[in-house]
Amino acid sequence: MTENISAEQAQREADLVETVVASFQNTPDARLRVVMESLTRHLHAFVRDVRLTESEWNEAIAFLTAAGAITDERRQEFILLSDVLGLSMQTVAVNNVAYGNATEATVFGPFFTQDAPLIENGGDLSGGAPGQPCWVEGSVSDTSGAPIAGARIEVWEADEDGLYDVQYADGRVAARAHLFSGDDGSFRFWGLTPTPYPIPDDGPVGRLLAATGRSPYRASHLHFMVTAPGSRTLVTHIFVSGDELLERDSVFGVKESLVVDFVEQSADTPTPDGRELTEPWTRTRFDIVLAPEA
Amino acid sequence: MTENISAEQAQREADLVETVVASFQNTPDARLRVVMESLTRHLHAFVRDVRLTESEWNEAIAFLTAAGAITDERRQEFILLSDVLGLSMQTVAVNNVAYGNATEATVFGPFFTQDAPLIENGGDLSGGAPGQPCWVEGSVSDTSGAPIAGARIEVWEADEDGLYDVQYADGRVAARAHLFSGDDGSFRFWGLTPTPYPIPDDGPVGRLLAATGRSPYRASHLHFMVTAPGSRTLVTHIFVSGDELLERDSVFGVKESLVVDFVEQSADTPTPDGRELTEPWTRTRFDIVLAPEA
Ligand SMILES: [Fe+2]
Ligand SMILES: [Fe+2]
Repeated sequence: MTENISAEQAQREADLVETVVASFQNTPDARLRVVMESLTRHLHAFVRDVRLTESEWNEAIAFLTAAGAITDERRQEFILLSDVLGLSMQTVAVNNVAYGNATEATVFGPFFTQDAPLIENGGDLSGGAPGQPCWVEGSVSDTSGAPIAGARIEVWEADEDGLYDVQYADGRVAARAHLFSGDDGSFRFWGLTPTPYPIPDDGPVGRLLAATGRSPYRASHLHFMVTAPGSRTLVTHIFVSGDELLERDSVFGVKESLVVDFVEQSADTPTPDGRELTEPWTRTRFDIVLAPEA
Repeated sequence: MTENISAEQAQREADLVETVVASFQNTPDARLRVVMESLTRHLHAFVRDVRLTESEWNEAIAFLTAAGAITDERRQEFILLSDVLGLSMQTVAVNNVAYGNATEATVFGPFFTQDAPLIENGGDLSGGAPGQPCWVEGSVSDTSGAPIAGARIEVWEADEDGLYDVQYADGRVAARAHLFSGDDGSFRFWGLTPTPYPIPDDGPVGRLLAATGRSPYRASHLHFMVTAPGSRTLVTHIFVSGDELLERDSVFGVKESLVVDFVEQSADTPTPDGRELTEPWTRTRFDIVLAPEA
């Protein structure tokens, strides 16, 4: 829209951009200088391109203020904002350039917590969270196919009501754990069959989604973070094949290679570990390939 | 820096931008759609251009979180952030396209408050705030030179310690007021001679300035907001000629046309209103020209 302004006005605006960029010229850290100069140029270009009004600027300040007010140790509205603008996923894309057959990464999301309980390989992470039992098994290997023993596997997910434990009122820990791959790189655990859930939409990000006609729902998924010495840390999900939300995940996290089958099992199907179940369950397999450390 | 990535990688990143832009296609409000699409494109361009690392993304989230945590009714870190990035001033530039001889606008800043006391034309706004007395007089007119009677003039400033009243611990109101221009458009009041002050720099914005080798100091100034029916609201400052900070105001607010002389007066110089002073004072003049309402 800048074509409707006078050359003199355009020059004034462009001069201001250069003045602000120049203010960073004494930044001791060269990388910080590059980042701040680029951020300045892109944000000024936005303000100029849309001819941002003063009331829109006020709305933006009020939006950020509201995001700050709702954020605490259990709620991270700024990550949600980055997520719904696709910026989290773009950062993942920029930093996880494809490496051979290594497993693809996706968004971290706002629900990881440190110090999730340790479970044995083969253990149950549900911690009493409601949901359909799901047997997950797989392996961790490097890109040559060699198994990686002792990889730390963090897993976290929402319960069948679409809530993570940090969203419970009582502060209990559930549906999250960490375990280690065995000597042959294999792992297995009982979790919950993933179900779709809305990202928290009672704050400014939820209001933004509503105002732009977007759904807050995420495609059903199970979170993984896998770390092993010498390997690039993998932050990813597995998604449920057939989920109608795969095409319109609210945070743009779906990658085709991460969509796996969760196969329905009747209540009387024998379980892999002899556990007796009185309800239907599912099982899936996820073989993880870690790229070498950069 | 994007030239170092493969065409395939660049395509993946570009595709993600288009997917996020397309997510706004059902926005009912056409203007909101334009704003969100542009914001998406510019922020993604920033992430891609600098190849933002995941730890830098984490720092950005932590920065915004800290800005939210320090913000309350008396402290507005998001406005400070917009100010030091020159975005407040760019928004002013975009919205206050020069109109004939109308007075130029500058940043609003974070220190305005509603309900500042009413003083008479000729009254004193200091409210006990420490500082050198300053007599300010001037006129309000339209661009044809016709006086504007009854214009509402809001004035606010820092005390000689560089503090606004909202920064006082005891919550008292000082160094701010509103008054109305007389029938001939003239106004006059006692205020304080402006002194330089740092924007609040004990939060994340202050840490950003320190990390980039920038000073938090603002050139000395006195804030005005002038409203009158049928006229464009003017938000501006007057700056003190000779102030060495004019060239490096931390929020990029200085415009040459807003720099005026504050003339030193000895203690025994008779004051315009017969007030007896025992200390030196200053006087200045600011003639305000309001553009017609758009
Ligand atoms: Fe999730
Ligand atoms: Fe100020």
